[in-house]
Amino acid sequence: MSGCGTERGLISVDEALELIIKQPKKLGSINQVLQNSLSRYLAKEIYSEINLPSFSQSAVDGYALCSHAEDLNNQKFQVTGEIRAGSESHDVLNEGQAIRIFTGGKIPEGTTHVARQEIVEVVSAKEISLTEHIRPQADIRFTGEEIKNGQLLAQVGQFLNIGSLAALSMAGVQTVDVYRAPKVAVLVTGDEVAEKAEDLAEGKIFDANGPLLKAWFEDYGLEIELIHVADDAEQVTHYFNELKDSYDVIITTGGVSVGDYDFVRPCAFETGFEQIFWKVKQKPGKPLFFAEYSHTEKDHRCYLLGLPGNPAAVYVSMQVYGKALLDTLQGNSAEPEWFSAILDHDLKEDARERFLRMHAYFDNGQLKVKSLAKQQSHMLSNLMQANCLVRIPASVKLEAGHILKGIFISN
Amino acid sequence: MSGCGTERGLISVDEALELIIKQPKKLGSINQVLQNSLSRYLAKEIYSEINLPSFSQSAVDGYALCSHAEDLNNQKFQVTGEIRAGSESHDVLNEGQAIRIFTGGKIPEGTTHVARQEIVEVVSAKEISLTEHIRPQADIRFTGEEIKNGQLLAQVGQFLNIGSLAALSMAGVQTVDVYRAPKVAVLVTGDEVAEKAEDLAEGKIFDANGPLLKAWFEDYGLEIELIHVADDAEQVTHYFNELKDSYDVIITTGGVSVGDYDFVRPCAFETGFEQIFWKVKQKPGKPLFFAEYSHTEKDHRCYLLGLPGNPAAVYVSMQVYGKALLDTLQGNSAEPEWFSAILDHDLKEDARERFLRMHAYFDNGQLKVKSLAKQQSHMLSNLMQANCLVRIPASVKLEAGHILKGIFISN
Repeated sequence: MSGCGTERGLISVDEALELIIKQPKKLGSINQVLQNSLSRYLAKEIYSEINLPSFSQSAVDGYALCSHAEDLNNQKFQVTGEIRAGSESHDVLNEGQAIRIFTGGKIPEGTTHVARQEIVEVVSAKEISLTEHIRPQADIRFTGEEIKNGQLLAQVGQFLNIGSLAALSMAGVQTVDVYRAPKVAVLVTGDEVAEKAEDLAEGKIFDANGPLLKAWFEDYGLEIELIHVADDAEQVTHYFNELKDSYDVIITTGGVSVGDYDFVRPCAFETGFEQIFWKVKQKPGKPLFFAEYSHTEKDHRCYLLGLPGNPAAVYVSMQVYGKALLDTLQGNSAEPEWFSAILDHDLKEDARERFLRMHAYFDNGQLKVKSLAKQQSHMLSNLMQANCLVRIPASVKLEAGHILKGIFISN
Repeated sequence: MSGCGTERGLISVDEALELIIKQPKKLGSINQVLQNSLSRYLAKEIYSEINLPSFSQSAVDGYALCSHAEDLNNQKFQVTGEIRAGSESHDVLNEGQAIRIFTGGKIPEGTTHVARQEIVEVVSAKEISLTEHIRPQADIRFTGEEIKNGQLLAQVGQFLNIGSLAALSMAGVQTVDVYRAPKVAVLVTGDEVAEKAEDLAEGKIFDANGPLLKAWFEDYGLEIELIHVADDAEQVTHYFNELKDSYDVIITTGGVSVGDYDFVRPCAFETGFEQIFWKVKQKPGKPLFFAEYSHTEKDHRCYLLGLPGNPAAVYVSMQVYGKALLDTLQGNSAEPEWFSAILDHDLKEDARERFLRMHAYFDNGQLKVKSLAKQQSHMLSNLMQANCLVRIPASVKLEAGHILKGIFISN
């Protein structure tokens, strides 16, 4: 499709991304159990309702001591009891007394020092002495030293990954307000899908787009409705009508170009969608289509992302625009997390901005990227080796060493 | 725990990783539906059983032409029919004839050129001419140009991410031999887990390790058995006996140090586990324990990864060692994918190698890392900001600009 980047009316990748990120209205929020909220975004900030640690505790297995002497090493301590992690203790230490304590055990009243067991000598059944000097505050975790009661724990928009979910659990957070997960339907259009090898002889092909989108959403953490539709205006219109009022997002593949059988746009307009943009000056994925349907009485919107039919265009569009749209609906209007990397070799120019599948590798603190063969939009096999998508600006011949933006795609 | 990095018998992080990667025996493989195999590793290479494309097809919406003239632009072509993607066609083109063809449509016999519709002028209902010059091979995707029948598609060990799964689908692959998913049980030990805020007054704490491990495995793509156990030798022994013959991996948290209530190692030995290593010269996570149980008659092995109880140690150990173990069992004996990055500021030294939670950012092709506050092993709150774990070598004071290894943890 040489030369068609010069076509009029195309918007740039950055313009398309901005419309995807700015235009959609956030979904509402729901309150749900924290443990079921992996990969969601917080819709309401969280303040801690406890101190962390919530009581002063030992950082080691050892002894809590009470001594106001200058030099503890000349002293013998009488052992009066034992405190385990999780056990309630009302012991009080007096001068010259010690108590056996384990990591996480609650520091008893009267404690001046904690001595880890490695520097303690057991003199007799009930008596210990120290073999090294210790500082008064060492090996104690003090109440509230990490988090104070009332302190901000997490902000609106916080992504609930493994670490943040664990940190909130530790602060006793049981439920969270998160943006509702978008309800998504995927329509794979096309008459050309083969069920078995024999169909190939008749001009059909095996379906990559269905499995690709199923896997993409499994990885993103959303269940979807996946529907195969023939290249038939009546059927496409039927599904748009059926889905637009109960789904937040419809994703279509194919049928979005200017061919005589490209039904997606006409059917979208017929069923009340309004175009936000069509056609992006990029490769792959030029005919990308984005539209919105709005039911004002119900305060409901449905966004239609019409992807081209070529599987590489589907792949790139989902990684770049699909993720941005779904994140935006969940309150996180952010661009993809572009890395910056150093081009490993020269690159020919092209009239359109390209997303090339590349291999990124680290070299002494520098990220370098190397292109892979078989970049055409109907080819996917280089995704076995690719670990990133790299943006190649339009209409410039690039030399090795040029700095480029990209995203990692290893999973 | 100042100074305890000098303890004898500790192995290094690299030694521990090598034992985790080299020692375990790979699990068996199973044949399963490709579409259900996201995040698994291939156990058998795959050769293509078809050409890709499997027939020569148009790369554009336009016309297939037959002309042996020197200059096609002086010629008019008679349009004889239409070929859509997925439709069977037995048309044959003769000199001076053209056929309307759509992207993915099968190129008819006799075709010499394909002209995209943008450069075609429709002269009359059945006649077209060209407005630009075209090359004979342009805009045709030739049979087998991406993959030849019989060609290697994917190697043993290939990770089935979104892209590789889609690429295999496109080649008509329906089922794959993958390493069996490890069967994993998680035992969270400790008497100190609080159910509600009132329990905190009694020396208990909210559980971070259970939710952390649940989320970790959800993200990794494995369902697990999660069990809470009291600090009680009888109970721990009971579970080891119950689990060792039917699970591939047991992960424990807590009870693995040298305190009087650290039951994990004695109970492991009592139930037939043999130590592979214990104690790693690292922070957090020094008491890390790794052991193997082997039932030779049944050719079954169970690996026990005993994590310390501190949640930061659990988090780091899973990202570094837990992932390596699970990947190794699935045939992928690889170290974590270390990035190399540039330290943003000076760092104090420590007797043990440290994994610091840091924020990584790109700066003109360089990856830079900046440390976060609150790194102690009982603290997790900086995981709200952290996006990587960085290895800080032991016993050296580092200056800004030093190159460090790390892994990304954004999800």
